[in-house]
Amino acid sequence: MSTAEAPARAALSGRELSQVDRQWRAANYLAAGQIYLMDNPLLREPLAPAHVKPRLLGHWGTSPGLTFVYAHLNRAIVTHDLDAIFVTGPGHGGPALLAHTWLEGSYPELTPDVTQDAAGMRTLFREFSFPGGVPSHVAPVVPGSIHEGGELGYSLAHAFGAAFDNPDLLVACVIGDGEAETGPLATSWHANKFLDPVHDGAVLPVLHLNGYKIANPTVLSRIPRDELDDLLRGYGYRPYHVEGSEPAAMHQAMAATLDDVVAEIRGIQAAARSGAATGRPRWPMIVLRSPKGWTGPSEVDGVPVEGTWRAHQVPLPAVRENPDHLAALERWLRSYRPEELFDADGRPTPEVTALIPSGVRRMGANPHANGGALLRPLDLPEPRDYAPRVAEPGTTVHEPTRVLGRYLREVAERSAGRRNFRLFGPDETASNRLDAVYQATGKGWQAAIEPADEHLSRDGRVLEVLSEHLCQGWLEGYLLTGRHGLFSCYEAFVHIVDSMVNQHIKWLRSSRDIPWRRPVASLNYLLTSHVWRQDHNGFSHQDPGFIDHVANKSSEVVRVYLPPDTNTLLTVADHCLRSRDYVNVVVAGKNDTPDWLDAEEAALHCARGAGIWEWAGTHPGHEPDVVLACAGDAPTLEVLAAVTLLREHLPELAVRVVNVVDLMRLQPDTEHPHGMTDREFDALFTRDRPVIFAYHGYPWLIHRLAYRRANHAGLHVRGYTERGTTTTPFDMLVLNDMDRFQLVIDVIDRVPGLLRTAGTTRQAMADARARHRRWIREHGEDLPEVREWRWTR
Amino acid sequence: MSTAEAPARAALSGRELSQVDRQWRAANYLAAGQIYLMDNPLLREPLAPAHVKPRLLGHWGTSPGLTFVYAHLNRAIVTHDLDAIFVTGPGHGGPALLAHTWLEGSYPELTPDVTQDAAGMRTLFREFSFPGGVPSHVAPVVPGSIHEGGELGYSLAHAFGAAFDNPDLLVACVIGDGEAETGPLATSWHANKFLDPVHDGAVLPVLHLNGYKIANPTVLSRIPRDELDDLLRGYGYRPYHVEGSEPAAMHQAMAATLDDVVAEIRGIQAAARSGAATGRPRWPMIVLRSPKGWTGPSEVDGVPVEGTWRAHQVPLPAVRENPDHLAALERWLRSYRPEELFDADGRPTPEVTALIPSGVRRMGANPHANGGALLRPLDLPEPRDYAPRVAEPGTTVHEPTRVLGRYLREVAERSAGRRNFRLFGPDETASNRLDAVYQATGKGWQAAIEPADEHLSRDGRVLEVLSEHLCQGWLEGYLLTGRHGLFSCYEAFVHIVDSMVNQHIKWLRSSRDIPWRRPVASLNYLLTSHVWRQDHNGFSHQDPGFIDHVANKSSEVVRVYLPPDTNTLLTVADHCLRSRDYVNVVVAGKNDTPDWLDAEEAALHCARGAGIWEWAGTHPGHEPDVVLACAGDAPTLEVLAAVTLLREHLPELAVRVVNVVDLMRLQPDTEHPHGMTDREFDALFTRDRPVIFAYHGYPWLIHRLAYRRANHAGLHVRGYTERGTTTTPFDMLVLNDMDRFQLVIDVIDRVPGLLRTAGTTRQAMADARARHRRWIREHGEDLPEVREWRWTR
Repeated sequence: MSTAEAPARAALSGRELSQVDRQWRAANYLAAGQIYLMDNPLLREPLAPAHVKPRLLGHWGTSPGLTFVYAHLNRAIVTHDLDAIFVTGPGHGGPALLAHTWLEGSYPELTPDVTQDAAGMRTLFREFSFPGGVPSHVAPVVPGSIHEGGELGYSLAHAFGAAFDNPDLLVACVIGDGEAETGPLATSWHANKFLDPVHDGAVLPVLHLNGYKIANPTVLSRIPRDELDDLLRGYGYRPYHVEGSEPAAMHQAMAATLDDVVAEIRGIQAAARSGAATGRPRWPMIVLRSPKGWTGPSEVDGVPVEGTWRAHQVPLPAVRENPDHLAALERWLRSYRPEELFDADGRPTPEVTALIPSGVRRMGANPHANGGALLRPLDLPEPRDYAPRVAEPGTTVHEPTRVLGRYLREVAERSAGRRNFRLFGPDETASNRLDAVYQATGKGWQAAIEPADEHLSRDGRVLEVLSEHLCQGWLEGYLLTGRHGLFSCYEAFVHIVDSMVNQHIKWLRSSRDIPWRRPVASLNYLLTSHVWRQDHNGFSHQDPGFIDHVANKSSEVVRVYLPPDTNTLLTVADHCLRSRDYVNVVVAGKNDTPDWLDAEEAALHCARGAGIWEWAGTHPGHEPDVVLACAGDAPTLEVLAAVTLLREHLPELAVRVVNVVDLMRLQPDTEHPHGMTDREFDALFTRDRPVIFAYHGYPWLIHRLAYRRANHAGLHVRGYTERGTTTTPFDMLVLNDMDRFQLVIDVIDRVPGLLRTAGTTRQAMADARARHRRWIREHGEDLPEVREWRWTR
Repeated sequence: MSTAEAPARAALSGRELSQVDRQWRAANYLAAGQIYLMDNPLLREPLAPAHVKPRLLGHWGTSPGLTFVYAHLNRAIVTHDLDAIFVTGPGHGGPALLAHTWLEGSYPELTPDVTQDAAGMRTLFREFSFPGGVPSHVAPVVPGSIHEGGELGYSLAHAFGAAFDNPDLLVACVIGDGEAETGPLATSWHANKFLDPVHDGAVLPVLHLNGYKIANPTVLSRIPRDELDDLLRGYGYRPYHVEGSEPAAMHQAMAATLDDVVAEIRGIQAAARSGAATGRPRWPMIVLRSPKGWTGPSEVDGVPVEGTWRAHQVPLPAVRENPDHLAALERWLRSYRPEELFDADGRPTPEVTALIPSGVRRMGANPHANGGALLRPLDLPEPRDYAPRVAEPGTTVHEPTRVLGRYLREVAERSAGRRNFRLFGPDETASNRLDAVYQATGKGWQAAIEPADEHLSRDGRVLEVLSEHLCQGWLEGYLLTGRHGLFSCYEAFVHIVDSMVNQHIKWLRSSRDIPWRRPVASLNYLLTSHVWRQDHNGFSHQDPGFIDHVANKSSEVVRVYLPPDTNTLLTVADHCLRSRDYVNVVVAGKNDTPDWLDAEEAALHCARGAGIWEWAGTHPGHEPDVVLACAGDAPTLEVLAAVTLLREHLPELAVRVVNVVDLMRLQPDTEHPHGMTDREFDALFTRDRPVIFAYHGYPWLIHRLAYRRANHAGLHVRGYTERGTTTTPFDMLVLNDMDRFQLVIDVIDRVPGLLRTAGTTRQAMADARARHRRWIREHGEDLPEVREWRWTR
């Protein structure tokens, strides 16, 4: 049998039933209280309008289901000594989680003004969704959370991310039936093809069908039961059903089901870990069908509320103004019989807390959910051990990401024992030339393996799935539980996770204000197969805008690096893997790139973030006539090629080359911690000379970062201006006016007082552009002089 | 039986089998030829390195599966007189689609230099993935396509979008097993809960399991067959399987299966349309399992290629350099026996074209796939008929989106007959206060309907699903097949479709260069529940960056509107619904907003895009001392409130108010078609007076748009700077320094030579900000003076 009804047996004794029900009632009381009350928390006096908040905010609808699952997990943790955390997909149900963490004591321990007594309960209620208080969702302030539920879709991916390499952990994940309609959630079910029962922990999905979203029924609640079972079995699970609304029966059903599910998970793990089973297990999951707004008002103003979408947020909307609503609220709150649940001081009674675990077994106190507390630094190799020797700039070439792959191989080797580092990618690890890592660890894969397959393994720590959403969600879950990782992605398609990285940045930003949240490893992106080398794939693959996207976000969190060559990439990668609480965006090419700096120069240059490349400029010791600035590997090469043209054609011109690795250096120091002072900026870019800036991405970003600088009027930026197609690499530069010939033209057009020969040079450059166009049309590849160009002093 | 093997009967006569096989072989030959050859297209001479392209680009792996499906659909169209289009999920298989459209003649008709003869074949081959030629993916240049396959995940959503309100259309959609791993695709299967068998057409998903992505096996090809069947049945389909590699057997199986599937679809439609069936049908779909790189080289350099991931792109990589590869390529190409397929002039023989439909039945010539050709303008009501009367600015308030909802109700009513307008939203239509539309049409819903439900109907033209991906994908498919629509979305969460809108903008941009692609209706976003009114939901719901995201894209396509009140919103909406080939982003609030302009003023102001609000400034006729500019409803209100404070405290100050509706007006006219000339800009913003600009989004965008203007140094922008939490509406403004008090302080700090009283005013403003903070902490709502503020002359 691959589907199960809740067992008919009574899993709970009468005493236990009463205890779990009291715990649930207490949590429901506290959840409703947070939404409504600013005073009289224990209803020791009759409810009056003045006790009620002026603005009623929060989501009641999902809360009683969440409190129900949490209470039963508490019971199961106590009974089976589980090490478990709770991921709240319906993250709007903040009141439910705050209620339980208050009951279990984890929230009061971490939040001194919210004591576990009447005064603390009043503060708990008052601060919820109150200005300057706590957010209405399951935000970082909620103990035990690794998942902000504001934007729906990522709970199950986060849960799997938390479970990877945590063999003793059970990650319970409640999935709302609204969230289940999102794309990221719909594909997250398949994560079980990547979860190794030997080295990873277990994920227990609890699909909570309460039937409604804000204003509509949900798809999964309105398809026939057998169709739903087909779907969940098709996803590879064994669904257990718990369904109803009568509390006692539901308690027995849920408790018995959890007992069975825990036994089944332990059986799966034991079989796999003993070697008795080698295939992909069919993991259990629970379908919980309960009314939306369960135990809340069944009718308001003559229309049904409990069990409908009307229970989604605040079921009684006019409590201060409408005496009927006030009375209904009081009846509702008193229906939980708070006098049975809290003692004279407002503390939960022993019967309420009897089935709540203690210490780190409390889900709000489990250190896995405050990952920084468990974080161990990676044992990182020296980048210089992988650094190509560079005797002379530009005389050798390497594929930066391929060399990085060798470095990452050693990172993977050194972390093999602790299993605290993973690489994530949407089927692009080899395409992005990081495949050396396969020598250290395979690609994790629990589905069938066939003879022609390469590098697949049950315990591999590289995860590849054609879903940027899953890569991102897994990595977030992995990091927030105290591990390390890197996500390598085609630059254009990382926009798929724009909204996810927003939420992660907001999470990190908010966590900084919460003293007990310990720093976690940074989320590191390696964006490669970037815009300038998507000539072959064409326009749809050309987009450098992820940098712009993150640049708007909190400067405390966001870092952007554009290493121009292999050694700078190694240095940047090492730095990023050591950093904490950042989102590091590294953009680097996979194609042959000249080596500009040796290991020491690279370390120094990256430490500065931006600097003058004396060796690349002309007329050392002179003030420059023009600054050629560059950020990114393709722009750097093009700028250096322009310098060789300028040296040849306009030898009298003093050219300074400035390279920017750390893009945020361009901002004022008042705007970003990495920002340069005006004095520093002026020292690099001058206060008055023309600056021709060749930039990897959309050129306007440079203006947005540098508009306050003295020399902003002298700044002329070239970059990608959304002109692309399937063509050659150099033609991409020409189409977007960032090729060497155009850069020389830009210099001539902007440097005042050039000799008359400049006009001839200008024409020669324009001719070269025209020659290029004819050549590629005929030959299908770039001009030989471009393909064969090498930097020479 | 809810799953089916391919029928054992022979659906094709011997002649038909030969014809469909010749068609397939011809298409495969042409697909391989495009990847490799720049000359000798018919192999009339022995293959030499000079015939081979210098850069080998393109994706062979998926191509033979695509040609197979296309050939069989051609046969089915001819046999059953189907009106069908083809959506190519594995869009990298551009060669396959170009091959078939060349064979059927649609591509040659539209592309005069690609004649259907040897010379045209040479051009077809040469131009494929060649600089200045055609892209390697199924781009807009491919006749019959409504779907660029560069970024994977959206094929099935596009297919459903095309099928809505096209009752006679069959949309065949090939889904690659790589694409099937993406989130958007995983949830797209559920679109069958929204497809009305009476008024909509049919979608036929063909899940193509060729087993591999770039470098990995695919999940769906490596789960057991019964698990896959469970999954597809769980999604609500009846899967038919066609599996194998032996061409003759596969032809028979596919033909018989298509015959059965077509009969089943017709049966479903007949039953629904006669009223005999009222429930949600179980639509058929096909699982095609065939080798990757089918019919290509089985082994290269001693390792297997056909049937493995090595066939993904170019199976023989070194043809010019390696004589063995050259010989293998020649053997491979000759294995299709081109001499049987093309006549002496290079035209396909009658046996090849025998089962290809003609005229508009050809999938490359079906007008549904060139939607502009079918586009009929909407019959739009007059916005002024819905416009609130505004006798005096700021004396009345309306909820802008609620009034817009009434206007849209009439749009929906007037389009009821033609069924060419739909509204899309992720469960937020009512939350966004557009629910008046339900009076004209319901929410389309094919799953179970229960008594408490409201506004659900089988034939509703509002589509609500908790997936921004589905909303976006459906709308794109709907628009590209010649209809109209609007997507209303929470502003923060529209980032979920950042990458999709990228692709759509690129599609529209590319289409402009293709003469036969007719203009389609614009993709219209209504972004509401915006950043300034997500005070209650908190930080996770606060993000105005979608504007920044689209602002980087082609200026030919992107338009951004920030109507400050109800009448301007009506005017903008009317304009957007009339426009073509744009992506219009409209940001407008749903909360009570003062009415600033009457209908005529609004029309004039929106036509100008930006203008001086004389009535709001002081000292008419005088040059201003300061310009207060605003863009967006919340900033506009705040600027006007600041003006009332300035009038009171600094009556000598000449204040000009400039309001910007059309954000792209701020750009130079050289950068955007809506851009202002410098003269126009200076006339509004002066060349030298301080400009305090209150902007809806991230403030840096205004600098990025205006950095070239004479007065850029005088521009001081306030906006959202990523400071937010759960708080009050006014506190959001205070947190981000855009409140009225701060704006007055900004004025005082920037206008030179103010009287000494300005210092007192400055202190009063700072005091007000401090008073605000204390008040909200205590009362949980905004200062009475802020809540009750009204504009007065």
